[in-house]
Amino acid sequence: MEEIDTMKTNRVSTQALSGFMELLPVEQISFNAMLETIRRTYEVFGFAPIETPILERAEVLLAKAGGETEKQIYRFTKGDTDIAMRFDLTVPLARYVAEHYGSLTFPFRRYAIGKVYRGERPQAGRFREFYQCDIDVIGDGDLNLRFDAEMPSVISTIFKKLGFERFTIRINNRRILNGLFAGLGVSDRVCTVMQSIDRLEKIGATGVAKELIEQGITQETVDRILEFVTINGSNTEILEKLRAMDIDDPEFARGVADLTEVVLLGGAMGVSDSNLSIDLTIARGLDYYTGTVYETRLDDYPDIGSVCSGGRYDDLSSYYINRTLPGVGVSIGLTRLFDQLRKRRVIKSVASTPTKVLIVPLVTELAPCLNLASTLRDIDIPTEVWFGDAKIKKSLGYANKMGIPFAILIGSEELERGVFSLKDLTSGIQQQLDLGSILTTLKQ
Amino acid sequence: MEEIDTMKTNRVSTQALSGFMELLPVEQISFNAMLETIRRTYEVFGFAPIETPILERAEVLLAKAGGETEKQIYRFTKGDTDIAMRFDLTVPLARYVAEHYGSLTFPFRRYAIGKVYRGERPQAGRFREFYQCDIDVIGDGDLNLRFDAEMPSVISTIFKKLGFERFTIRINNRRILNGLFAGLGVSDRVCTVMQSIDRLEKIGATGVAKELIEQGITQETVDRILEFVTINGSNTEILEKLRAMDIDDPEFARGVADLTEVVLLGGAMGVSDSNLSIDLTIARGLDYYTGTVYETRLDDYPDIGSVCSGGRYDDLSSYYINRTLPGVGVSIGLTRLFDQLRKRRVIKSVASTPTKVLIVPLVTELAPCLNLASTLRDIDIPTEVWFGDAKIKKSLGYANKMGIPFAILIGSEELERGVFSLKDLTSGIQQQLDLGSILTTLKQ
Repeated sequence: MEEIDTMKTNRVSTQALSGFMELLPVEQISFNAMLETIRRTYEVFGFAPIETPILERAEVLLAKAGGETEKQIYRFTKGDTDIAMRFDLTVPLARYVAEHYGSLTFPFRRYAIGKVYRGERPQAGRFREFYQCDIDVIGDGDLNLRFDAEMPSVISTIFKKLGFERFTIRINNRRILNGLFAGLGVSDRVCTVMQSIDRLEKIGATGVAKELIEQGITQETVDRILEFVTINGSNTEILEKLRAMDIDDPEFARGVADLTEVVLLGGAMGVSDSNLSIDLTIARGLDYYTGTVYETRLDDYPDIGSVCSGGRYDDLSSYYINRTLPGVGVSIGLTRLFDQLRKRRVIKSVASTPTKVLIVPLVTELAPCLNLASTLRDIDIPTEVWFGDAKIKKSLGYANKMGIPFAILIGSEELERGVFSLKDLTSGIQQQLDLGSILTTLKQ
Repeated sequence: MEEIDTMKTNRVSTQALSGFMELLPVEQISFNAMLETIRRTYEVFGFAPIETPILERAEVLLAKAGGETEKQIYRFTKGDTDIAMRFDLTVPLARYVAEHYGSLTFPFRRYAIGKVYRGERPQAGRFREFYQCDIDVIGDGDLNLRFDAEMPSVISTIFKKLGFERFTIRINNRRILNGLFAGLGVSDRVCTVMQSIDRLEKIGATGVAKELIEQGITQETVDRILEFVTINGSNTEILEKLRAMDIDDPEFARGVADLTEVVLLGGAMGVSDSNLSIDLTIARGLDYYTGTVYETRLDDYPDIGSVCSGGRYDDLSSYYINRTLPGVGVSIGLTRLFDQLRKRRVIKSVASTPTKVLIVPLVTELAPCLNLASTLRDIDIPTEVWFGDAKIKKSLGYANKMGIPFAILIGSEELERGVFSLKDLTSGIQQQLDLGSILTTLKQ
């Protein structure tokens, strides 16, 4: 390898750009399997696919963005057009719904799976190009709360199918927080207060208290806020404690009622109590959530942070269209999730190819091998024919390296007797079978 | 709509950028089905997925590019990095194979499906963002000609699965052309001569002759070139005529031998004679093809042009690594193909959602509906529960608009009798069934 590396330095660097994930086939196959599980689950819940361009007019993406997002955006000019790469799938959805409003049926249930771009400074576990897998339901004018209850059901189905039993969907309602703050007279500082609360786990109660005091909030009010956000217990207990609180605010009351219904319905939709947990500290940084909010953690890998989050918003597309379009949705950041699981060796990688059968011709006559390959492919069994030297060792070496589970050897003896030698490369067992038996065995 | 349109003009434009395809769900579902057919066929032939970033170092993409490509490329600077968007999947493959050479097993069979970017001037049928669906087999040092024969088999399987019986894979071998030109003493102008020949269909024999004369080629040589490229007949006849030509050149002889073998093996791999046709005018513009070349046309839509093309190249990655890596591959430009078929109304669009069953609760109690939904989803039937008003007309109106084929109504009568009312929305037939019968009926 020395020689190659030396040569390479005289040539163009072949590494992918920093912050861009690139996988070997064995990993890509696992990644795609996860993606397919997510996609299939979205479809089984009746979400329709849409796809928007990766490039948008910069003014579209920046209509609402600002601060960090604006700094991170990939933006450039081509001809006269000020172009930017999408940094999420929500802003393009807002534009899409506004543009195609007249052609869509509401409630509009859509999923979108695609790459988004953020030119962040590179740091461990952060990507500049990454997959988001989003679902949203958009209503025209209004949207029933039942859709909020459906989200945990989708999330739960996905993570179970991905092989996780121990995960927690944390749920909250922004109205409770808004109502509380109105009751406490700090409505004008809701955003900054929520940002502090959002960091409770990171900086602890003392840290949050310190930040709130720095914001000019009285010690008494800070105490009540902390008393509130540290309420704990089962979902039922938390909801009871909330109702028992002496907060006379209609927004607070509605938030508690909504959260109660969403948790109740979530259960009826098959989400286990162990997977759905009210957490009053969840606010989600983005300021457009207005009702239910979600975060999902893998219990065995808490340091990964949230693997699926989202919430309810009052108004998706007001920057683009004069219609009130409330929605609720969640998003899975698959690239980061996969990367974190891979580093923890949770990803089960099996093979470097989808091929299940390698057919090895041991005679010059290729036709029987090619015919068998066609037959296997017709019944959806991924099949390759070995086109290298007619040497068993070399071909089986290739099959083993690739993780191909079966080989079929066809030599003069097999041709004479009208059979095939099927070799199970895991067990090493080889047997001569006729076509019917081969198909039956492989179909299993 | 008047009011909305007026409002919109005061806001940000919501149209996708010109040259960027954006589909309604009903079309997106058809598009995805085509993509999935292609992906599945690639896998059933044992090609492994890889995915490279959409952004690359500009020097990587421009190592080999030039002329038109360089003008079309989306290129920008972020921080200190000179970045470009990939304009095909082949250059990133070359970089990938060089970078991961030590970790790959050869022959390396990979597929890649992804978006590529070309900032062309917008014109009918051209896209700036479009999907390419590529397969390539890369050898280390050498690569058996049998892989060339496999490509038509893959192409043929895909287009048949897409519902086309009448298509023609035109095949040629660059060695024949190179050998001919060597024999005729015009080797120094092979590239320009081939570019002219490539346009035979567009500009006719007279046009080609004119161009060749302008290149300074003698009338006698031009006559021989035209005599050659207008050879026609069945594959067998063309190969016989080639062998009968008085061209004493080893490259020519090898080209004819290779083409003969590829056509013969292609047949053995299940490609019908009617779908595989030698065309001596096919050269493929790009100058890196060195052997077999392919183009595919849909016989009923010849004006769409080539829908799948590619060929054999001697050296994939010489810009990046000191190894000889020959390969053969083909590419389907799916975005353009879909767009052209859509315009010709060849795309069968069925529904705006993957949902097969809409469950409609006609009582307040939701649990039976939610349970049934879970049961249906568990057996992979895409299902929605109607969360709007408990009105049959509204819910069935939604189902009809979306193209959902079945509705299940659950009212007090059904709950009492322990049955479900299954309504086939195509035929209008409604029947009361128990759970077992519902599942059996819907599974079909």
